[in-house]
Amino acid sequence: MISTTPPSGFRDYLPQTCALRVRALETISKTYRSFGFSPIETPSVESLEVLTGKGGGENEKLIFKILKRGEKLELSLGTSELADMGLRFDLTLPLARYYAKNQGKLPHPFKAYHIGPVWRAERAQKGRYREFMQCDVDIVGSASLQCESEVIAAVLSAFDALSVSPLLHLNDRNLLTALCDAAKVPGDKRAEALILLDKIDKVGAPAVLAEMEALLGRDCARFFADHVLREKPDLDRLKALAPEAMDRLEAVITSLTPQFGKDRLILSPSLVRGLDYYTGTVFEFRHPQMPISLGGGGRYDRLTEQFGLASVPACGASIGFERLMLLLEESDHGRTDAAPRACMTVFSPELYPAALEAAAALRKQGLDIDVYPGAGKLKAQFKYADSKRSRYALVIGPEEAAVGRIKAKDLLSGQETLETRETLAALLKNSGA
Amino acid sequence: MISTTPPSGFRDYLPQTCALRVRALETISKTYRSFGFSPIETPSVESLEVLTGKGGGENEKLIFKILKRGEKLELSLGTSELADMGLRFDLTLPLARYYAKNQGKLPHPFKAYHIGPVWRAERAQKGRYREFMQCDVDIVGSASLQCESEVIAAVLSAFDALSVSPLLHLNDRNLLTALCDAAKVPGDKRAEALILLDKIDKVGAPAVLAEMEALLGRDCARFFADHVLREKPDLDRLKALAPEAMDRLEAVITSLTPQFGKDRLILSPSLVRGLDYYTGTVFEFRHPQMPISLGGGGRYDRLTEQFGLASVPACGASIGFERLMLLLEESDHGRTDAAPRACMTVFSPELYPAALEAAAALRKQGLDIDVYPGAGKLKAQFKYADSKRSRYALVIGPEEAAVGRIKAKDLLSGQETLETRETLAALLKNSGA
Repeated sequence: MISTTPPSGFRDYLPQTCALRVRALETISKTYRSFGFSPIETPSVESLEVLTGKGGGENEKLIFKILKRGEKLELSLGTSELADMGLRFDLTLPLARYYAKNQGKLPHPFKAYHIGPVWRAERAQKGRYREFMQCDVDIVGSASLQCESEVIAAVLSAFDALSVSPLLHLNDRNLLTALCDAAKVPGDKRAEALILLDKIDKVGAPAVLAEMEALLGRDCARFFADHVLREKPDLDRLKALAPEAMDRLEAVITSLTPQFGKDRLILSPSLVRGLDYYTGTVFEFRHPQMPISLGGGGRYDRLTEQFGLASVPACGASIGFERLMLLLEESDHGRTDAAPRACMTVFSPELYPAALEAAAALRKQGLDIDVYPGAGKLKAQFKYADSKRSRYALVIGPEEAAVGRIKAKDLLSGQETLETRETLAALLKNSGA
Repeated sequence: MISTTPPSGFRDYLPQTCALRVRALETISKTYRSFGFSPIETPSVESLEVLTGKGGGENEKLIFKILKRGEKLELSLGTSELADMGLRFDLTLPLARYYAKNQGKLPHPFKAYHIGPVWRAERAQKGRYREFMQCDVDIVGSASLQCESEVIAAVLSAFDALSVSPLLHLNDRNLLTALCDAAKVPGDKRAEALILLDKIDKVGAPAVLAEMEALLGRDCARFFADHVLREKPDLDRLKALAPEAMDRLEAVITSLTPQFGKDRLILSPSLVRGLDYYTGTVFEFRHPQMPISLGGGGRYDRLTEQFGLASVPACGASIGFERLMLLLEESDHGRTDAAPRACMTVFSPELYPAALEAAAALRKQGLDIDVYPGAGKLKAQFKYADSKRSRYALVIGPEEAAVGRIKAKDLLSGQETLETRETLAALLKNSGA
């Protein structure tokens, strides 16, 4: 017998979960559009040349590669060139290729959003999957700091529309460079020092400090302790070190304050964000209930270079959709708006046309109305309606049909009422989760 | 330099096209939900065992296979077992696996919709792509004819919501079997005869008749000419041949007539639909402007057998989304609702906060408001607004700020008016495409 379990790291979504996903994706998409970002789509599949770029390295290991086909495969057997394409592992690299390819046809600057699955051949483990959604928003072609404000505002607004209200942590790679300069971190140890710094939220400041001392010596570690690894950063000291970067960070925070409030916008001089394509601002969205960020982004001004476009300024942000879903699922209880508002039962084949007609009329009022696919015992149909998490089951039996009424059974209270089409529509509209 | 062109058969979607796609997908999803279908998602990737099933054959050639990784790949080099998974080529087979895996957790009967990309390694050619969307709707676990009515009604309603109104062509595989019996088509020639019959829309009845005569002889061909290959089928003759199948077809048409009208519901005894998993009703959605169908479906009662579930009745339909998009793109002209309603320009860095605040207030009224990502010459910003297909560009300069007004420039007429926030919101709400 063929196994029905999805491949390791891949998932089936049950209806209740999937309804939440659809609603969240539509909300994010709608919010991004409300900020004037245009949707784009790129293929799931890119050439290996694009995916591995120049550097490749770490990313290459994550790529699900697609076997060559037909004659090309025959010719490649016995070589190491068995694949020609791969599944994308993020949406940023495809965006850079897309922009390089299509820029002549795009508005300038280009505000785009990009929602879709990405794939990573990581070892599957709890909470880490091999196929997951990303929801990216980017502005390409403008060096203005307004881009930072705009992408952050769009993402925070999307979170807020879903009643998830994360904090924003904000930093600038140039501030980190200035810190390393001032602390005299040798060039060959900078990457390692930044990786250490980035661990502060996972392991705490004392542990980072100890490791830093081992790596860079006491003076250097102390410098970071004074400037970065403290409860509240000393803005004046940082401003003395990197005045321009600090001005930029403060400008972004100032522009976002009226809409989101000062308390949610946090200057975090220890924030690094792993990806090495960031060239300026970096930021993360963090939720107190989550040990890892709900997303993040930053400025990356050099990503199109590999496609022959030098120095195109760009800034973007991404929502880690699967982590967001963990939060949304926790707060989802029972009957939601995602369920059909009511299930129309079918009393008998003779009364099926009446059921269909009433259902169609209610749908015209914007209501989602399930119709039971069959006839037979009402009890089984009520059970079906309940399993769909509908609040009401509707019945048009001979008695109801004779007086032009519809019986509405409230599946929570068990109460039954006789309604006209108008009173029923009102009842259902007011029965939201 | 790395090529920026997507792999052969794969596409980038430009913003205008993509906005149409997003809107169409959301409309289809919303319509399916309004009929009580629950969304499900399955992985893009399935094991090759699932994808090739028992038969495999034709489908196997279409699968993009995923190269094994790490040690498993090392061990497989030199063998023909280089891949372990593949990209799904439709959504029906994954649904059958999903149902077999999860049926204990699903409502019964199970009404599901499933929207997502599928991949086929076909030779790329005009209008045929290697990655494309399908929008499926299925009822699993019920043999009732109401399932046919329900999935057809959901799909026709989705088309209607997009102002595309195709005809429904309907047939039953059992009617075709009865015809072959009555015409005494030998068992080993039936598949070929049905394939011929299915070509009638492409090549016309006379050509089919000629080929049929060559394949089956004159008497047999004449039988098909009398019963099937005619302008208007002779219902009484067909009913005499296959009374039960004809009753079922008429019941489905009767149930759909009140909502869609008799003229759109066509009994087509020559309709076959290629896929061999259909066991009863088959149908197609056809549009006069399209040589190929916009989608179709039917009853398939045996698809879960390969996953160990015998005789689970099921009926489903699918929208060929890319063909639908061809129609929608043709009728899309100029400024649509998919564009931001207005673009807020940024007169100067000093007036950026005022621009941001006004944009946020307009968004709260449900309007999509683009903010120009930068400052600088207004002329460039107007050009940007126009390239986004916004109807209005908004300006808050020193004069407007002084009197608490916003200037609205109609980019179609060139006319400028001075608005309060309230009059502006009303103006923009009434400026729909």
